[in-house]
Amino acid sequence: MNVGFIGLGIMGTPMANHLIDAGHTLFVYDVFKIPAEVTDKGATAVASSAEVAKNADIIILMVPDTPHVDEALFGKGGVAEGLTAGKIVVDMSSISPVETKKFAEKINALGCDYLDAPVSGGDVGAKAASLTIMVGGPDAAFEKVKPLFEKMGKNITLVGGNGDGQTTKVANQIIVALTIEAVSEALLFASKAGADPAKVRQALMGGFANSRILEVHGERIVTRNFGPGFRIELHQKDLNLALSSARALQIALPNTATAQELFNAVAARGGGKLDHSAMVQALELLANHDVA
Amino acid sequence: MNVGFIGLGIMGTPMANHLIDAGHTLFVYDVFKIPAEVTDKGATAVASSAEVAKNADIIILMVPDTPHVDEALFGKGGVAEGLTAGKIVVDMSSISPVETKKFAEKINALGCDYLDAPVSGGDVGAKAASLTIMVGGPDAAFEKVKPLFEKMGKNITLVGGNGDGQTTKVANQIIVALTIEAVSEALLFASKAGADPAKVRQALMGGFANSRILEVHGERIVTRNFGPGFRIELHQKDLNLALSSARALQIALPNTATAQELFNAVAARGGGKLDHSAMVQALELLANHDVA
Repeated sequence: MNVGFIGLGIMGTPMANHLIDAGHTLFVYDVFKIPAEVTDKGATAVASSAEVAKNADIIILMVPDTPHVDEALFGKGGVAEGLTAGKIVVDMSSISPVETKKFAEKINALGCDYLDAPVSGGDVGAKAASLTIMVGGPDAAFEKVKPLFEKMGKNITLVGGNGDGQTTKVANQIIVALTIEAVSEALLFASKAGADPAKVRQALMGGFANSRILEVHGERIVTRNFGPGFRIELHQKDLNLALSSARALQIALPNTATAQELFNAVAARGGGKLDHSAMVQALELLANHDVA
Repeated sequence: MNVGFIGLGIMGTPMANHLIDAGHTLFVYDVFKIPAEVTDKGATAVASSAEVAKNADIIILMVPDTPHVDEALFGKGGVAEGLTAGKIVVDMSSISPVETKKFAEKINALGCDYLDAPVSGGDVGAKAASLTIMVGGPDAAFEKVKPLFEKMGKNITLVGGNGDGQTTKVANQIIVALTIEAVSEALLFASKAGADPAKVRQALMGGFANSRILEVHGERIVTRNFGPGFRIELHQKDLNLALSSARALQIALPNTATAQELFNAVAARGGGKLDHSAMVQALELLANHDVA
């Protein structure tokens, strides 16, 4: 199958490589540069997103944020200029669910299907082809693209219509951030109360307080292992998406807002590239601190 | 063994019954009344906590809150008046870890050991003898009391010295409340963004957002099943303990504070006896609400 791939960064490059390895013909574009490892494998580098769309039946995007998707789809030389009816646009970036619905409508108006299919699992998951993929869009389009998803990920769910994939990703990032915050408050409390946080964590893992985050990030907090992992600066982007979408949807997310402020505080002190479990450091700064 | 039991409420009654069933001789006291089911089984009702302490080698307390433990131990006719050296006081109530350390010192000064051994699992766990028991205190005393704990619970951990059991319980209640809050923000977001929260929850259970709370309380939120379970008014008490202890320890717990406010909001509207997963209703009140 002729597949287009737009955005060959730290995520897109290994994802595109898996598709080439599976025997697909790839047409690729990036606003910066195309890594040699992709063209060496046989992908064809073209001059614009429009050229990708002309050559491919399924066009995948993997770019940083909402404005980049907007530009790649509808900017000058964008995907929309190269589309003909019957093609499928698949946005695997993590962007606004609210804007995603508008993008899907505009692509549908050109006679094409749209899938929003953000992932979790990071560059490790991208390399291992073990990404979790959360999809929104029409069932028939999902079934057509599924064989490609299966080359890039493992836990692949069609959640609902357009936007629902991005909504699920935002919900995921809210829960992950707030559970890290919960474990941080609890282990800081335990530590300041004089208990051994490692033993407290162990005792808590037997009951209702248990979570993947207590297991993985709880251990990072106890052992002070804050090398990434998933960087705070990326989680800041995701919570910004949650908070701006919440405003558009007219809902209040008080603990997401606080978690973002705690990330901001760690980033302000140079910690933006630390693992997101380093959020605990912002709470530590607030504890027992001498105020002049 | 002669065992004392002070506090025969909804938790203490089934716990005491398990000890009687295991063949122990029980001396019991409650400031209100002793349930007939306990004396019918052969427990001896006595006139005060001091009388319990005189008759028993191990004295267990299961009362509502810090002031009740203080009164039962050190008030007029309290345990301290009846103790002789070598006995063990076991507080299974959920109370302040900071005050617990002071109580333990005062009991130690009388030549007796002290264990703080709060539980989780609620009245269902008490009846089923499946409570999680988090213990602080000396190893030797723990080993002596362990056979009694094993008649009342299943997941029994000696976390550290006196206070560490209560600290672990507080840490547990912080994580449980904040994870409920996290799942509430995420599922409300999903719902207001137009996705099916049941499908979003299902998709999230495959990744880092998964937790016992997403499984159990997430399902309650999706199916609107808010009958208790663990009542909001009890979790309010526990978070009050967390917040007052945090103040004493000079640490800030911003999301615990917000979670408590959300519980307060649900309770203010008559929801104090609902399951704690009904916290989501406070966020729902804040969403899309017409303000005059």
